Amino acid sequence: MDDIGHKDRPEHEGIVVRAARIQDVAKLADVSTATVSRALATPERVSPEARARVLEAIAKTGYVPNPAARTLRSQKTYMVLVVLPDLANTFFSKILRGIEETLFEAGYGMIISDLDGSPEKEAHFAAFTAAGRVDGAILLNGHLFGQSREGEGNPARITIPLVALCEGIPGADIPQIEIDNRAAASRMTQHLASLGHRSIAYVSGPPGNILERERFQGFKDGLAASGLPFDPGLLIAGDYTIESGMRAGQDIVVRQDRPTAVFCTSDEMAIGLMRTLFSAGLSIPTDISVAGFDDIEFAAVAEPALTTIRQPRRELGQAAASALIDLLQGRSSPKRIRLETELVIRDSVAPL
Amino acid sequence: MDDIGHKDRPEHEGIVVRAARIQDVAKLADVSTATVSRALATPERVSPEARARVLEAIAKTGYVPNPAARTLRSQKTYMVLVVLPDLANTFFSKILRGIEETLFEAGYGMIISDLDGSPEKEAHFAAFTAAGRVDGAILLNGHLFGQSREGEGNPARITIPLVALCEGIPGADIPQIEIDNRAAASRMTQHLASLGHRSIAYVSGPPGNILERERFQGFKDGLAASGLPFDPGLLIAGDYTIESGMRAGQDIVVRQDRPTAVFCTSDEMAIGLMRTLFSAGLSIPTDISVAGFDDIEFAAVAEPALTTIRQPRRELGQAAASALIDLLQGRSSPKRIRLETELVIRDSVAPL
Repeated sequence: MDDIGHKDRPEHEGIVVRAARIQDVAKLADVSTATVSRALATPERVSPEARARVLEAIAKTGYVPNPAARTLRSQKTYMVLVVLPDLANTFFSKILRGIEETLFEAGYGMIISDLDGSPEKEAHFAAFTAAGRVDGAILLNGHLFGQSREGEGNPARITIPLVALCEGIPGADIPQIEIDNRAAASRMTQHLASLGHRSIAYVSGPPGNILERERFQGFKDGLAASGLPFDPGLLIAGDYTIESGMRAGQDIVVRQDRPTAVFCTSDEMAIGLMRTLFSAGLSIPTDISVAGFDDIEFAAVAEPALTTIRQPRRELGQAAASALIDLLQGRSSPKRIRLETELVIRDSVAPL
Repeated sequence: MDDIGHKDRPEHEGIVVRAARIQDVAKLADVSTATVSRALATPERVSPEARARVLEAIAKTGYVPNPAARTLRSQKTYMVLVVLPDLANTFFSKILRGIEETLFEAGYGMIISDLDGSPEKEAHFAAFTAAGRVDGAILLNGHLFGQSREGEGNPARITIPLVALCEGIPGADIPQIEIDNRAAASRMTQHLASLGHRSIAYVSGPPGNILERERFQGFKDGLAASGLPFDPGLLIAGDYTIESGMRAGQDIVVRQDRPTAVFCTSDEMAIGLMRTLFSAGLSIPTDISVAGFDDIEFAAVAEPALTTIRQPRRELGQAAASALIDLLQGRSSPKRIRLETELVIRDSVAPL
C-alpha cells in the first residue's frame, strides 16, 4: 500500500484507504458504536477509561464524526491547549504568562499539558485535541502529535488550529513563532572570539532538539566567521538543566588543556557550571569566561552577572497566542514569526 | 438590612433576602432571561461579551439554575481551575507540575488562571467557576472569590469543591494544604541566633499576605526563643521578588550600623540582595550572613550557595490535587494538611 499520498489516513492492514468510520473507532477501542457516540456527545455518561480509549482510537484512525455528531462536539470550548515538554522548567514561566494574558483578552482559557517525557500522556492529549475538547493548541514540544521530532510517523489528524512556539516544527504547515537561534548563537560565539578567546567550549542542549541543532549550527558559523577551527573535543553534552551544567563543569575542571571560554546554550546550565567552577577554586571571568542563553530572571543577579542572549519570552507567548487567535477567528496568520534577540553583556565574560 | 446571617445572599438594595432568580441575573447583566438560559446551556450561541456579563451576574447574585438547567450545566467537565497570583513567578513551576501530574492520573485536566493583580480577571474566573465550567478549583491566591485577603466582602457562591494551597484562607471551610510557615521562620531565626548573630534584619513579603504574617510571627518567636529583643528598625519591606531583594540590599548597604545577618523570606529576595551587597564590595558570609526561604532550584547553585528553608513544592502540588480529587469523587478530605519543611544549611550563613 502506497501511503505517500495518504499520510493522514488510517493504516490498518487490509483496510482500503478511505475515511475512518465510527465502526473503526469502536473496534479499535473495543467498545460499542453507541459508546463512541456517547463519549463524544455526553462524555460524562462514559467511564473515564472507556472515554480515554475512544479518544485514543479517534486520534489513531483520524475519524471525523458525522455532521450531526460533529455539531455536538464542535461547539466552541473557548479553551486552548498549551503543550509543554516540562512544566517545572522555569524558562516557561514568563512565556506562559504571555500566552495566558493574550488568550484571556480574547476570551479564551488556557489548559496546560505537561508531557514530562510520557508517550501515554502525549497520546492522551493528542486524542483530547483530535476530539475537539479545545478550540486550538500551542505546541512548545517541537513536534506534531503522533510524530517524532524528526518528523517520523503519521501525525494525528487534528482539524483545529495549531501553532508552534520556540521549538520550530520543520515541514509542519502551521504558524511558527520563534527566535533566530542560529544567528543568536553565532553572535555570542563571535563576541567571545572578538575578546581573544581561541579555545571556546560549547555545552549543548539535548540531542535531537531543534533548538540545539540550530544553536550548534550558529556556534560553528560563529567560529568560521571568526577564523577559528571547529574542535569536536570542545563539545560537552548538556540538556539545558542546572544539573547538566554542573556536570559540564566537572568535565572542564579536570581537563589539562582547559578552554578559556564556555558557551552554555541555556542560562540554567551556565549557572550550574559556574557553581562547579567556583567549587573547584576557579574565578570567573578571570580564569574562564562563561556565557549563557535565554536571559532568565536569575542571569542578571548571578555572581558574576551572566553575559547572555536575551529571548523576549513574554512577547513570544503573546505572539503565539495572537497567531492562534487569528486562526480561531477566521483570519490568516503569517507562517513564520521571528522575534528579535539581544546580546546582553554583563560580567561573566572578559577579554582573554 | 442585617446581613450577618446572610453572607452568601445577594445584597441589592431593596431586595428581600431570598434565593436569586434568573430574572435577577438577567436584570443585572442587562440581557433577557432567554439569553441567561442560553449562556448556560449553549454558550456558543451567545456573544462572548454577553456571556461574560451573565457569568459575572451569576457570581454576584449567587443564582443557582433550576434543576433542568442545572443538569445541563452540571455535566462533568473533568477540568480543574488553578488560580495563581502570578504565573511568571518561578516558585510556582514545580507546584504546578505536582498538581498537573496528579490531576492527570485521575483523569482531570488543568486550566490556569493568572490573576496578575487584576480585579476584572478575578471576577471573570469567579463567574467561570460559579457557572460550573470546571469541576473544582485550587486556590493559590490566599482568598476566596469575592473576598479580600482579610476575609472582607461576601464570597461568590461556588458550589463546586475548592482547595487552598500554600496561602491559607482563614475561616474558609475548605481543605488547606500548606507548610508551617511560622515554625519554619522561627527555626531559621534561631539558627542565625545560635551562630552568634544579635542584629538580624528581616526582609518581608508583601503586606497583608498570610505567608508574610505567619513568617513574621515566626521571626519574632525565634528572636524571643533566643533571648533577643525585637527591633522594628531591622524590618525591611519586600514583596518576594528579586527586585525587592535588590532594593533591600541598598537599604542595608547605606546603614551606619549594619546588621550581621539578613533573613530574606524568599530565595528570590535573598539572591537579589546578595547581588546588591556584592556590588557594594561586601563579602558573603564574611561581612554579612544571608538566609532565604523556599529552596528554589537556584538556591543550591547561587554563589555562595544559599542557606534556606526547603518547601516540598512538588509534593504540595500533589497533595492539593489529591485532596481535591477526594472531594470530586465523593470522599472526604482532611481540612488541614501540613507538609514538613527542612532547614538547609549551605554557605551563605556563617558564625559571627
